[in-house]
Formats: sequence, C-alpha cells, structure tokens
Amino acid sequence: METSMLALHGLGVSRGYAIGRAVVIGAAALEVSHYRIAEEDVEAECARLRAAFRAAADELAYLESHLPADVPRELGAILQVHGMILADAMISQEPLGIIRTRHYNAEWALTAQGQALAEQFAQMDDEYMRERGSDVRQVIERVLHALAEADGKPRSLRASTLAEHGDPLVVVAHDISPADMLKLRGARFAAFATDLGGATSHTAIVARSMGVPAVVALGVARPLLRDGDVVIVDGEQGVLLVNPPDRVVDEYRARQADYARERATLAALRDVPAITLDGVMVSMLANIELPEEAEAAMQAGAEGIGLFRSEFLFMGRNDLPGEDEQYEAYASVVRTMAGRPVTIRTLDIGADKELDGEATVATNPALGLRGIRYCLAHPELFATQLRAILRASAHGPVKVLIPMVAHLREARAACTALAAARHELTVRGQACSQNIQIGAMVEVPAVAIAIEPFVEAFDFLSIGTNDLIQYTLAIDRADPDVAGLYESLHPAVLRLVANTINAGARSGKPVSVCGEMAGDTELTRLLLGLGLTQFSMHPQQLLDVKREILGAHSNALRTRVAAALNRAAEIDLSLLNQ
Amino acid sequence: METSMLALHGLGVSRGYAIGRAVVIGAAALEVSHYRIAEEDVEAECARLRAAFRAAADELAYLESHLPADVPRELGAILQVHGMILADAMISQEPLGIIRTRHYNAEWALTAQGQALAEQFAQMDDEYMRERGSDVRQVIERVLHALAEADGKPRSLRASTLAEHGDPLVVVAHDISPADMLKLRGARFAAFATDLGGATSHTAIVARSMGVPAVVALGVARPLLRDGDVVIVDGEQGVLLVNPPDRVVDEYRARQADYARERATLAALRDVPAITLDGVMVSMLANIELPEEAEAAMQAGAEGIGLFRSEFLFMGRNDLPGEDEQYEAYASVVRTMAGRPVTIRTLDIGADKELDGEATVATNPALGLRGIRYCLAHPELFATQLRAILRASAHGPVKVLIPMVAHLREARAACTALAAARHELTVRGQACSQNIQIGAMVEVPAVAIAIEPFVEAFDFLSIGTNDLIQYTLAIDRADPDVAGLYESLHPAVLRLVANTINAGARSGKPVSVCGEMAGDTELTRLLLGLGLTQFSMHPQQLLDVKREILGAHSNALRTRVAAALNRAAEIDLSLLNQ
Repeated sequence: METSMLALHGLGVSRGYAIGRAVVIGAAALEVSHYRIAEEDVEAECARLRAAFRAAADELAYLESHLPADVPRELGAILQVHGMILADAMISQEPLGIIRTRHYNAEWALTAQGQALAEQFAQMDDEYMRERGSDVRQVIERVLHALAEADGKPRSLRASTLAEHGDPLVVVAHDISPADMLKLRGARFAAFATDLGGATSHTAIVARSMGVPAVVALGVARPLLRDGDVVIVDGEQGVLLVNPPDRVVDEYRARQADYARERATLAALRDVPAITLDGVMVSMLANIELPEEAEAAMQAGAEGIGLFRSEFLFMGRNDLPGEDEQYEAYASVVRTMAGRPVTIRTLDIGADKELDGEATVATNPALGLRGIRYCLAHPELFATQLRAILRASAHGPVKVLIPMVAHLREARAACTALAAARHELTVRGQACSQNIQIGAMVEVPAVAIAIEPFVEAFDFLSIGTNDLIQYTLAIDRADPDVAGLYESLHPAVLRLVANTINAGARSGKPVSVCGEMAGDTELTRLLLGLGLTQFSMHPQQLLDVKREILGAHSNALRTRVAAALNRAAEIDLSLLNQ
Repeated sequence: METSMLALHGLGVSRGYAIGRAVVIGAAALEVSHYRIAEEDVEAECARLRAAFRAAADELAYLESHLPADVPRELGAILQVHGMILADAMISQEPLGIIRTRHYNAEWALTAQGQALAEQFAQMDDEYMRERGSDVRQVIERVLHALAEADGKPRSLRASTLAEHGDPLVVVAHDISPADMLKLRGARFAAFATDLGGATSHTAIVARSMGVPAVVALGVARPLLRDGDVVIVDGEQGVLLVNPPDRVVDEYRARQADYARERATLAALRDVPAITLDGVMVSMLANIELPEEAEAAMQAGAEGIGLFRSEFLFMGRNDLPGEDEQYEAYASVVRTMAGRPVTIRTLDIGADKELDGEATVATNPALGLRGIRYCLAHPELFATQLRAILRASAHGPVKVLIPMVAHLREARAACTALAAARHELTVRGQACSQNIQIGAMVEVPAVAIAIEPFVEAFDFLSIGTNDLIQYTLAIDRADPDVAGLYESLHPAVLRLVANTINAGARSGKPVSVCGEMAGDTELTRLLLGLGLTQFSMHPQQLLDVKREILGAHSNALRTRVAAALNRAAEIDLSLLNQ
C-alpha cells in the first residue's frame, strides 16, 4: 500500500529536481521562552545578552575568515552584511533597554525588537528590500542560538548530525541564513525548501549560484515535516512533495536525468552566438544584483551586464557607502567582465527606505520619491555614485542607467550631473572614460508613450517590464488582492514595449528588455516578434532563452505580432510557436 | 504710516473676494485640559461624558429639525452624517473604556480616541476620504463644547456675539463644522478662512454652494489672527491678507466689483448652447458628490450629470447603505435633473478603506483593490448598488459608470452583473429602464493605450484625468515629495486623452473628460484641440468654461494640437490663444 503523499506549493526560485530526505531545521525565534525577570536580575540579564552578541559576532568573524575556496562568493558578502546588522544599535542596544524597562528576559526582548523591525521591513514597497527583513531575522536567530548554547541547550541546527544520513539531504526550514547555508555545505545537501522567502531572498540567490533546486514561500513545510521524510523538490514547478509513492519517485528520477541531459546540451550553447533562423543577431546580457554574480554571467556566456543593480551597496547599514567603496565594487565587475560592457543602474531606492534611518512611509511609495527623483533630491549622494561609476570606467566599458525617468527635465538633470561628476574627476586628475554612455529605464508609462524626446536625450534605453506593467495596469504585484490582475500580455503593455523598440530602431539607439519578461522562455518569441534584439536576464536563464532564439524565425514572428497589436487583441502565444 | 500686512497662502476652494473683519473661532480640541481621575470618580466621569453626548445629539437633532428654508441643502445632509458619527461606538463607547482603564478625564479620553481615528483617516489614499476625517473631529469638538457648557464655561463659538460687528465678517477657524456654519448664517459672514481642509472639505462644498469665497489649508491663520483684524479673502489666488494697507483694500474693492460684473455676464450664458465659433456643439455636464449639488448643476445650466460620485453613501458609517436608501438618493438627483441624463459612478472605494471597519492598509493602495476590482470582490455590495441605480432609472435617463477598469474581463464582468441586477428587478416586478447605458472611466493607462476593445465593450467612456495622470507619470499627487512632478500637459497624457477621444469618434461612442482638466479654463482650448465635445466639471466652473468654448475655433485648435502631439512636444498653451 502506498503512503499518502502531501504536495505543498510555493515558489520555485532555483531550477532542477532533487529527491532526498528532509532535514527539518527548527526556527529558534518560534521556540524561545518568554518570562519576566526580577528587578535585581536586570543587569545580569543584560550581561547575558551582551555575551551572546559577542559570541555571535565571533562566530560570524570566524566563518568569514575561514571561507573555503570553493564556496559561492555571495556567502562572504552576505556574512559581512550580517556582521553589520549585528553591530547596529537597533539590534544590539534596543533590546537592553527593553530588558531594563519592561523586565523581559533576553530572548523575549530580542524577539520583541526583531518583530518591530520585521514589521517595518514588511511595509516596504520594494520586494528586494522587504526580503532584506529576513537578514535581520536571521541575525536575531543567530543571537538566540548563542543564548541557548550558553545555557547548554543543544543547537537546533547541527551540521554534524546531518552528515549521518545516507541519502541526499533536503533542507526544510522556516528560513535559512547564509551562515547556516555555509555550515550545511559539508552535508552536501541536494535542495532547499523554506516557508518564507521570495525570488530575491538569499536562499534563492545562493541556491541558484550553487546550482541546486530551491522552493521558497511554502508557508507550512517546516511545521508539517519531520526529519527523515522522503521529499521531492521540484524547482521547475515550485512544489515540495512529501512521502511520494514509488511511481512518483521513479517519474522524478526520469525528470532528473532529462534535466541533467538538457543542462549539458545547453552548456554547449555557451559560446554560440544568438542568431535567429533568419539571421537576426541578438545580444544576450545578464542582470546582476551583487558583484559576485558577474562570474556566473561569464560562465553563462553573457555578452555583457545589461543591468547591474547598485542597491546592494546601500542596504543593511546606517551610513552611506563612500566613493572608494562603490568604485571597488563597480570596478570588480568591470574587471570580471573582461572588456564586455557593464551597465550600472544608479540607485533605485525610494522614500519608503530613507537611508538616514528616519523612514517616513509614503501612502503610495511606488508612486513617490524613488529612482532618479530620489537621486535628484539628494544631489551629493547622486554625485558620489556617478563619480564611482566613472572611475570604474577606466577598467573597461561602462554605461550608466537611470531608473524611474518620467520627465524630460529629469533626463537633462541626470546628464548634467554626469558631466559635473566627470569634470570633478578631471580636476582631481583621476582616470575615467570620456564618452561614457547614459541610458534610461523605460518603466514609467509616460516615457514609453511619448518616447521620441527620450530616445533623443539618451544613448540607449532599457525596458523594465516589471514596473512598466505595474504602472500601466495600476497594479501592485506585491499586493495579494490584485496580484492576479498583473498581466505581461495585456495589449497595452505590448504596445508600449513595441513603441519603445521601434523608436530605438528608427533612431539607431539600442533598446533592451531587462524585466522578467526577458528571461521567460515562454515570451522569447513574442519579444522577438516585437523586434527586440537585446535581452538582459538572470544568468541562469541565458542559455534557455538563447536556445529559443536559435530556433525562431524573427520576420515571421514580427508579422504575426504586429497583426495582433493593431487589433489591440490578447496575444495567443501558441500561435507564435507554429 | 501703513501697518505691516501679513499674507497667508492656502488653497482657494470657493471663488470671489471678500473684505471684512476677522471673527476668530477657537478650536476646542486644542484647548482641553488633561488630567487623571481617581478610581472612585471613574463612573461619575463616564456619566459626565454620556450626558455630553446626549446634549450634543439633542442639539444636532434640534438644528436638523429647524433648518431655515433658505439654507443650503448640503447642511442638512451633513448634519445627518454627524448624527450617525455621534452614535457610532468608536466615538461614543471607546472613550468610556479609556476613562475606565486609563483614568483619563472625559475630554482627554475623547480627544485621545479622536486622535487615533484621525490618524486612520489621514492614512487613507483618497482625498475625499481623508477629508472625511474632519467630520469625526468636528463631531468630537461638538461633544467637547457640550462638556464645557455643562461646566458653565462659555462656548468658544458664539453666534450671538458675532452679530455685534458692523463690517462684513470673515470666519477664521482651525476648521468649521457644518453645524457651526449654520449658526454663523445669522451673522451674514462674507467668507471663510480655515487652517485645515481641502478642495472637497465641507467648508469648501458649503462655501461654494453659498457663493461666498473660501480659502482653506492656511496652516496658521487661527493662531496668528485676532478678532477684529481687517482681512481680505482672495478665493481666486487662495490668499488671506491680514491688516492690508488702504491701497490694497482699494485694489480689492475694484476686483470685487469686476468679479461681480463678470458673474452677472456669465449668468446670462446659462441657457446659451455651448457652440464653438466654427459650429462644434459641446455638451456641458456637471460632476457632483452629494445629491443636493444637483440643484447647483441645474442653476449653472448643466445639460446633465457627467459624474455623480456614490462614495458619500458609504462614508462615516459602519454598516452598508441598503438598496432602498441608495435608490432614494439616486432617484432624488434624477428627479432634480428633470429629464437630463444622470451618470452614476459605482463605488470607487479601495482596500485602504474597508467598509467593515477591519482596514488593512495596502502598501500602495492606489495600485490595489479599488474601484471595479473592489466591487467584483464584493459581489453582493455591487449587486445592491446596481439594483438601486437601475430602479432610479425609472424616473429619468440614467447611465452607469464603472471606475478603475483595466482588463477586458472586468468590463465583461460588470456588464454581466448589470444584466443580473436587471433580471432580479424583473423577477421582483420593479420598474427600471430596459436599455440603460454602461460606460467606463478611462483612468488606468492600459485602457487608454489599448482602447479599441474597451470602446467596443462599453456604450460611452469618461476620462478621469486625475488618476490617469497619476498612473501615467507614476506619481501620487497627494505625496508632497513628488506633487511637483504631476503635470497635465505631459505629452504622454495628452496622447492618451487624444487616443481615447479619437477611438470614441471612430466608433460613434461618446467620450467625456470628468477630471479636473475639464474645469480648468486654461485647458479648455487644449481639450477642444484634442477633439473633446463633452466636458464634465464642478457646477461652479461650468459657465467660465462655456465662455471659453463660445470664443474658440475648434478646427484651428485641432490642427495646432495635432502638430504638437505628433512631435511628442510640450504644449505651449499661449499658442492656442492666438
């Protein structure tokens, strides 16, 4: 008799399949005890918490300085961020105040403060920023572990015991901190499954860079599963199967083998130029969020970086990154890319995540002071970043990309700021390229609608389909009430993409798509049909999309797509595959 | 020697000029004493508060049943709303709990609860809803007055003493409740100036219906002014001048006379058809927010109601309005309009103002569950409203207008819901028009961009320029950080308006503009140049706009505007006046 199988649906954030046994990791935050302490014990409790902070900091420093050579570089960067969070007064000092005023025990004070911070992060507009709230939670869990260890309690996360299992191991957790991931490496885990997280959570980023499947946002996997449960992680469909019957396991073993063969085939496409059957040459570019990802872009055969987001430099800290620090980060990517162009997007941060810590949440942050609006309102911050980018251009081709442009005067102000930054470097005698290109994100509908003056003002354009869709449909995709109304194929969206691509073609200015549409193989033929010749996407998607391009006939697609656009009709994707 | 003049800048919300003496009205909420009461006095304090609630309710009921015949009808409706707020447990019960648990005195408990409610209202997305928070504050001030009167303290607002002044009187206040306005009538006040308020605050609505100038949002007028100060209220520029020198007073007397002459000239245009010099016939329609405003629409010669907002029925209450109540409200407007068409917009409320009181504020409410999205998620609420609208159509021509449409499937769902509501009435044997027209607001950019299927699905379209501009430029106009980037003349906005008007013309479906652009005389020629032949605006603006139309040459304007649109250039309005 077959056991009954449980299927949990989440979000597949790293591709592939894994079959193995669950290692269920407890979430310390959910299991701490809450009690009040006597007045005379307050200082002893504070001392106990401070000792735990020191232990956690020591452990982080040790991990960082003993990183194995073969570990993904993301982990080191993330450990540094966690070290900074650990040192932040909001985490290290505030709970001491709570112990003194409310007489909470150390664990309670720490989780109470963590909860308050988590709520602040949860209200942020940007998905990337919201998920940075999990860094705070993970750091707090680290201190909770240290408190428990000091009391002689066993750690809920025991890398040593994991190795005892024979089968491949699948980590099932509420959430996984990068430091824990590092420890888990020794156990050769085959996949990750977490209750929290999103497409840009650390679990996702690290799993993708390690090439192991991951499914996040499962909701209740951790409480439902037990150590040793047989599980299948389906990173393609975003599903976790628990205690599957043998026939399902067999089916997935076959899929695993197919997938491995497919990967091997794709790898052979790495250095093949992306040319359609009718000879249209397509540029394959990569989107990256961290300097370390440039390596993956090279491995996937990217012809350049189409979008290097610079937000990582500004996150998880109370001060602003200096010009030198920024320069080093940008220059490292330019060096890794070895002569291939690197497009650096200036800070796309909003008023809901003020960098000085005095956040005032706007009623509609997505419609507020963000992107170039924010940078023009903070000219010194903007000038510093532009100088750092210009200095990096001494090491290879660099382009500057401006987010959230809506008005021509913003375009002019950005160009003026870039010229001023170049002048400053000249005065200083520092090297930089003299003809650096400046481009704009096309993500505000107004620009895509009245594109002519913008295509004239900039050297290139990059269509950010995620935000363009959001504003065109007046839908916040992060709002579960309306997420179902988000639709890449709305004829209005396609008309705006077409209008932008056509304007670029008329004026000889390059236009790329760097939103999620570019990395979706279901939409590759549609984008070719819209006339797109520059695709920028996550490195992991590059070879799949390239294969689609190699098999497509561009002119035939253009005819079919134009006909549908003229009617403002919904696009039937299946017709494009004929 | 001239005294030094003070000029305060606010928002002109009712037109005209007034010169008079200030009557400064104290804000009770700012002046209450805060102290803690002893445990044994708690119940006595509760009784004191309950008595004040009864006194306030009695006074409201008395005012309502003794309304003079010549008083604007808005006042009666607003007094009813205040009565409902007064009876709400959030206002009448919660403070009793605060007295019992925190031992606050009655005034403190009441203002503390009022503050909490005010913050909830302040976070709301919609300007109209935000300003409804002032109803709550005014009701609380009424109870505070009753508490003070019971203690034998003089009321800060004394209609009797006002009449002692000889000059015209200008009311200067933190905010003015409708009930206080009623009392002030006897003093024949010449204008209003308030520190709070916006374009749709009660002060604004009532002042406009009374035809007296008003400036709101002055910030600090009340604390700065004293009784008897000579003031000039400039409702055109939104300025309050304090202690102006004689030459300024003379200048304003001349402006007053000019304004009166101009009004008289305009009044003569009431029954003149709006036809351009080259013979294009234009429909002049009115926007209203309350049933009572239909009268003003008739007085201004409106050919119909282009936009009757239905939100007023759902505000300031914890329950939903029933079908009969809604029917009465809609039918009263249909009767007043005496055969002229009435376009009723279905509820445009969002997830940030949940009607069941369990508000969950979305991160970006403007991009969330609002308008038709909200109605389709609450089918019973939607069906009730559609039945009430259909029943009102038995008394004259009625059209249904659907807000926030973005997808064709929403259009189809709205039409299906309307057909189902008609069927229900047929089963019941209740009368309604069998061919009621259904139209859509064009305010989501997607619809204006891919307009063809929408113009086909609906009988008419109405362009809501306020939201259309907001989404097209990705700017929340209520956010002070980016309000300056809001721009009606962005070429993208004008292209969308033109595209919608042209699609309507091609298919023979009427298209109106009901956003603020329609009532702005500076933009009348531009809209004519875009091909617009249906303008819908606040009744007070109708005759001014009509005069512009009578002096314009439509074809010449169309040629000039088309040339600018083709270039996606900024429009130079001065060129349209040549």
